[in-house]
Amino acid sequence: MSRRRLLGTVGAAGAAGLALGAVGGATAYAAGRPDPATALTTLGAGSVPFHGVHQPGITTPAPARGHLIAFDLAPGSGRAESAALLRRWSDSARALMAGESAGPGDHTGIALDAGPSSLTVTFGFGRTFFDRTDLVRHRPAALDPLPAFSADQLDAGRSDGDLWIQIGSDDALVAFHALRTLQKDAGAAARVRWQMNGFNRSPGATARPMTSRNLMGQLDGTGNPKPSEPDFDQRIFVPATPATGTPATGTPAAAAPAWMAGGSYAVVRRIRMLLDDWEKLPLTQQERVIGRRKSDGAPLTGGTETTELDLERTGPDGELVIPANAHARISAPGANGGAAMLRRPFSFHDGIGPDGTPDAGLLFICWQADPLKGFVPVQRKLDRGDALSSFVRHEASGLFAVPGGAGKGEYVGQRLLES
Amino acid sequence: MSRRRLLGTVGAAGAAGLALGAVGGATAYAAGRPDPATALTTLGAGSVPFHGVHQPGITTPAPARGHLIAFDLAPGSGRAESAALLRRWSDSARALMAGESAGPGDHTGIALDAGPSSLTVTFGFGRTFFDRTDLVRHRPAALDPLPAFSADQLDAGRSDGDLWIQIGSDDALVAFHALRTLQKDAGAAARVRWQMNGFNRSPGATARPMTSRNLMGQLDGTGNPKPSEPDFDQRIFVPATPATGTPATGTPAAAAPAWMAGGSYAVVRRIRMLLDDWEKLPLTQQERVIGRRKSDGAPLTGGTETTELDLERTGPDGELVIPANAHARISAPGANGGAAMLRRPFSFHDGIGPDGTPDAGLLFICWQADPLKGFVPVQRKLDRGDALSSFVRHEASGLFAVPGGAGKGEYVGQRLLES
Repeated sequence: MSRRRLLGTVGAAGAAGLALGAVGGATAYAAGRPDPATALTTLGAGSVPFHGVHQPGITTPAPARGHLIAFDLAPGSGRAESAALLRRWSDSARALMAGESAGPGDHTGIALDAGPSSLTVTFGFGRTFFDRTDLVRHRPAALDPLPAFSADQLDAGRSDGDLWIQIGSDDALVAFHALRTLQKDAGAAARVRWQMNGFNRSPGATARPMTSRNLMGQLDGTGNPKPSEPDFDQRIFVPATPATGTPATGTPAAAAPAWMAGGSYAVVRRIRMLLDDWEKLPLTQQERVIGRRKSDGAPLTGGTETTELDLERTGPDGELVIPANAHARISAPGANGGAAMLRRPFSFHDGIGPDGTPDAGLLFICWQADPLKGFVPVQRKLDRGDALSSFVRHEASGLFAVPGGAGKGEYVGQRLLES
Repeated sequence: MSRRRLLGTVGAAGAAGLALGAVGGATAYAAGRPDPATALTTLGAGSVPFHGVHQPGITTPAPARGHLIAFDLAPGSGRAESAALLRRWSDSARALMAGESAGPGDHTGIALDAGPSSLTVTFGFGRTFFDRTDLVRHRPAALDPLPAFSADQLDAGRSDGDLWIQIGSDDALVAFHALRTLQKDAGAAARVRWQMNGFNRSPGATARPMTSRNLMGQLDGTGNPKPSEPDFDQRIFVPATPATGTPATGTPAAAAPAWMAGGSYAVVRRIRMLLDDWEKLPLTQQERVIGRRKSDGAPLTGGTETTELDLERTGPDGELVIPANAHARISAPGANGGAAMLRRPFSFHDGIGPDGTPDAGLLFICWQADPLKGFVPVQRKLDRGDALSSFVRHEASGLFAVPGGAGKGEYVGQRLLES
């Protein structure tokens, strides 16, 4: 049975719905005029192209459900086995994202009847990959290990990995089907190192058009650079032609290898939220920890979610309105030499941990052209005095080089593996 | 900020969407004509009434996200503390299901901006509850322990419990907010015993109007009794006036106590699927294990999903077309004295287990007026010779008395706790 055929009758509606996406739907919702082009029925029909300059799953709207999975190459797997694996993975990802079967071996049926549901699959390489494939000379300096942070309590078994895949979809069974398919594709070439599940708000659940909330109830991603900003691409993606010379701000960027053109670097952190402690804090104290109002994300100095923080303003008591250790102050781009990263996280909730507290928090994923100008300077500052740090614990960490998107007939990573 | 006010502008669209629900949306999808009344934007606006003859979450369409949580009463908590707890829980459930705040202490903000997203909250009592509250004389015989099954590998720590709550919503953050709120409401009266998370297909992801799939790829729930059938209520719910005498089939039903009028019994099983083994089986063998085609759920003897099994038919080789140990044959109502239960499960996926295989499967939940005429006879037969049993493992089990719905001004369980 062809999944494509099942959905063929709604192709036009699906394509129209995709152009608007979740944001368009939420806007129509707020206005009280449901837009037929964003009907509930298009959730399954939404599809994201596999081929392109960038891989999908970076600027694509955050999906309702996600899986992260890291693999280590099996003993004996080198460059040739990796190339074959990336070709299998790319073939499967392209087919599944188009709502097709991943081939004759794809008989699990988990996604049968469903549309692609905005499935995205994103592939990355960890630092150790280059050692195991004799490709160290092609390893970007940007994959140098992240500095240690004092608040880290990292579990090595759930950190790093030779290969990393991010899967997202607005349907949990479509996402699970992709996970199982890609795991099967790994065959004898690679073994699972760790795997995590996450989620976001469902499309249409909220009238708020832009920013999602996390499990602390905060709007999360307010400071994200916007694709409409002129330097967005430069901050998030490695340019097609590696830059030379010294950039305007910060330390000189390590020259990115040519195979990373159009790519990006993903920092992945499993950030446990100490929700039992956090929720005991009264609302006004929570808002002072963050420096923003919980209701609408506006700075404590007033305005709306997008208003600039007034970092100098003092209250009648002479104290700073946005406290010196407020999370929003310390992480503000202006306080970090313009450091910018695109945050596209998932929440996670794995039930109750061995200590009786909720094993829940944020699968923090941020994207940047250079981690030394994105995640690292911000986290360094947060690590020194962020009021939020008493309520979170970084439990796992990974840093992955995510190459540009595959062209037609190409597989992801081909420019590295056949260089 | 009032969540209700935020959503007020779309009240009419929301109410219209609710009447159709997920099934209506899928039908419109298949026809290629998105129905404005089921626009994506109504996902958040969907709401289920708290008050009624039955509790919500039984015949309500299966939600995209769910939480199960069981509590044990704390030492010192008896009938009075339980009554106060059920009142707190009922107050919170009613407010949250209406998209309102659960009160001044509800400041987590996790569900801010979102509509009720078809939230349902369902409360049940386990066998041990009656001992701890000195209410043994009111304990239904239907709560007698389930028989042991040979395939059980039950973890006591994740089984049973004094109190049980089922939470469902089409939005994961709305569901999580309800979970945290109800856990906080427990206060010092009860302690969490176990907690599990589940999911189903998102509304609109599929063109198939009726039956959902599980992680083995099978349509799941094909044999469910339909609300349109004349004996549906009698099979699923305890009658308003307890029946006397001997029913037409099976053993005499234990007389249900008056406080259970309009209630039902939930059997909850965490059924691990051995997916690595299952997925190695070729499709034709998987279909012989089940007795149905995977693609459309039709019996191997032909027709459509709703066609009766032809249990006697043999093939050219003289063998039964639906094998003697096929799951569909053994679990067929006709083979079990008309035993009927309403299955309303969630899938679960808790990452990778300690043995390296996926910790995934089915949070099986079935509803019936009498477990001895629903789950027990079917599971007894399956336990003796179901081909599927090689691919599943029952890891946890619970049986809960779920009283009828609360009337206005009443709390769930009041008729028991104030009897």
